[in-house]
Amino acid sequence: MDSKKPNRRGFLKNSAALASLATGGAEVVSAQTPSPAAKTADELVAYGERSRFVNTIRIPVAERHSPDEFGLMFHVLTPLQDSYGIITPSSLHYFATHRGSFIPDIDPKEHRLMIHGMVDRPLVFTMDELKRLPYVSRIHFIECLGNRSKETHKTVQETHGLTSCAEWTGVPLSLLLNEAGVQKGASWIVAEGSEEVKGSSTIPLGKAMEDCIVCYAMNGEPLRPQQGFPLRLMVPGFEGIYQIKFLRRIKVVDEYYLTYDDYGHINADPKTAALTHQIGPKSVITWPSGGHKLSGPGFYEISGLAWSGAGAVRTVEVSTDGGSTWKNAELRSPAYRMAHARFGLHWKWDGKECTLMSRCTDELGTVQPTRAEVAKYWNEPVDKVRVRGNDNTVQPWKVLSDGSVRNGLA
Amino acid sequence: MDSKKPNRRGFLKNSAALASLATGGAEVVSAQTPSPAAKTADELVAYGERSRFVNTIRIPVAERHSPDEFGLMFHVLTPLQDSYGIITPSSLHYFATHRGSFIPDIDPKEHRLMIHGMVDRPLVFTMDELKRLPYVSRIHFIECLGNRSKETHKTVQETHGLTSCAEWTGVPLSLLLNEAGVQKGASWIVAEGSEEVKGSSTIPLGKAMEDCIVCYAMNGEPLRPQQGFPLRLMVPGFEGIYQIKFLRRIKVVDEYYLTYDDYGHINADPKTAALTHQIGPKSVITWPSGGHKLSGPGFYEISGLAWSGAGAVRTVEVSTDGGSTWKNAELRSPAYRMAHARFGLHWKWDGKECTLMSRCTDELGTVQPTRAEVAKYWNEPVDKVRVRGNDNTVQPWKVLSDGSVRNGLA
Repeated sequence: MDSKKPNRRGFLKNSAALASLATGGAEVVSAQTPSPAAKTADELVAYGERSRFVNTIRIPVAERHSPDEFGLMFHVLTPLQDSYGIITPSSLHYFATHRGSFIPDIDPKEHRLMIHGMVDRPLVFTMDELKRLPYVSRIHFIECLGNRSKETHKTVQETHGLTSCAEWTGVPLSLLLNEAGVQKGASWIVAEGSEEVKGSSTIPLGKAMEDCIVCYAMNGEPLRPQQGFPLRLMVPGFEGIYQIKFLRRIKVVDEYYLTYDDYGHINADPKTAALTHQIGPKSVITWPSGGHKLSGPGFYEISGLAWSGAGAVRTVEVSTDGGSTWKNAELRSPAYRMAHARFGLHWKWDGKECTLMSRCTDELGTVQPTRAEVAKYWNEPVDKVRVRGNDNTVQPWKVLSDGSVRNGLA
Repeated sequence: MDSKKPNRRGFLKNSAALASLATGGAEVVSAQTPSPAAKTADELVAYGERSRFVNTIRIPVAERHSPDEFGLMFHVLTPLQDSYGIITPSSLHYFATHRGSFIPDIDPKEHRLMIHGMVDRPLVFTMDELKRLPYVSRIHFIECLGNRSKETHKTVQETHGLTSCAEWTGVPLSLLLNEAGVQKGASWIVAEGSEEVKGSSTIPLGKAMEDCIVCYAMNGEPLRPQQGFPLRLMVPGFEGIYQIKFLRRIKVVDEYYLTYDDYGHINADPKTAALTHQIGPKSVITWPSGGHKLSGPGFYEISGLAWSGAGAVRTVEVSTDGGSTWKNAELRSPAYRMAHARFGLHWKWDGKECTLMSRCTDELGTVQPTRAEVAKYWNEPVDKVRVRGNDNTVQPWKVLSDGSVRNGLA
């Protein structure tokens, strides 16, 4: 961590941009006299709001999907370019749905979760009953398999905005399955939501028993409707489609079920089979990123997020010369397992065009690949390579000499 | 953690309340067909909202303070009775002000932070310049010194709602002070906010150099106005009055300054001097707590929060017999330094009147005292003891035979 020896670096002494700020101690700090905003007592007490100077919002994916019989396929992206730390505010959490504009409006008093199938003792729970069971609180990311950068994407919100990170609270799924009594021969669970199409996913029993959580809360309050209120399955490190929202049913079975949410998770090709469940290792620089503009040569703080479905982030490297050389970034947050980690690198920009990249190594030692490495593996041209599974390739950001930043894939 | 061996406990097998839930696997889970709420695309994209079934809000303190010349003294309490995990949603974070209903409405482009006084090189920063410096993200609690239970308080929101916990992001104060160059003989800093009364606090230089953070973000987005937008000082583990909001000036000095925010932090009595800066160790059961009602004999999950200004929570004990015997609770979240930790204990209620308590031991081995222990120390009657400094005494909740829960101090 920097905080121990910041002086050695001389951040300000060496910074042309900041040098002009030295001042006598006597002057008035602020040119403005902030005008106090008189609020009523009710306004002060109510569910709090952002400053009127903060108006970051999510955006829908650039490619509008075609409506199907269930409505518009709809993906909404987290504004990573304005993110701080590792917690995504619940109001800015990405969401993806294949049920278009239909979000179940569930009264939690009426909601039930059933555990059945190959169990000794099928069970049904009300929400109150679930909350009477032991629970855990864990910080985990979620990422959609479709979270991938395209040449047409301009900002990090467009290239990587289908991932967010939150504190999830709920009952360990293993506890519920153990109470129900899983029978011999069972090997999968099928988790089903309450949408009209009953969105569901088939999950290996081993994963279900390891660290899955039947969640009723995120970031300190009940789940948001877009995140599956009142109940969602958290499958740490697995792609988003597994994190079943509006969870109403878990069936223990002995074979893989092809469900509405299936995207070819059964694949005979051993080269791709392992790519379709677990996310990462992956990282992206969120500042500076596409659409940002550096004000001139000088010191800047490169900031980004790294994560892996396999566990904790071990190291993040940053290149400021298009991948020729790499430096270790610093982890600016703790690195939790299957959670976003914030990394940073203090960097002096000389004003010349350059390309910024980051790459993550996780606790297993797996290294995030470049696009060129993936292309070589598949023996395809770099500009036409089809990245199988989750696209965790290195994201390049090109800094032009005027300080503007663009998607390096373009 | 429970998740490893939940079956040993037989949560459901032993639970009269849940036994009736066993069911055949074939029946329909939910009696309801949730009616889909059709949303427009704009509604889906906008800054997200809670479910209409979730309407927890903060409340002002029961004792309305008298207005002074600066307006109404105003404290707004976090609804701990409905809390989950350790992150407090920014919209539900407690806040306290002595500037009544006046919250500075600051344009971040106009805001400045000055570091001056006994430094070699006084400095002034814009917000953009601060964001170009190395930063850290840490989860820390804040608690008001006035967070104390009274006989008249009915809920845990009233007894303990002046504490919250969030992820804070900003520049280590030590970095800024090192850049400015602290002069020999300096021993304190005075931190000042932008409110009309220039709320300020005097903080030991040693603490300032250790772990304080000049924060511009909380829970993944810019600070909320009630939390000091655009800049706040985080002084981990110290009482709330030190976490200066709307931070505009830090002066390095060689003596204690008496400021508007001073509440007698200079005290010649060595028995109380140590009680007036650092919070805790402290804990409180948030469920079940005053106002909750148990539905009948059976298994319940006792849940609560523990924290200490001295570092991490090491253990939390729970008593279900008014303090005669104690059991170790389980930590249901990681225990971060100077952060809330979530604890839980699975408990079988026999339907008889009883008193629930929790007590925290922190990493230094300091144990949260009972009210009786504090009374004995000061040689005062228990029902009239004046708890000096932060009141970190054990909170009793009385469970009546009808299942209703009341403040045990009443």
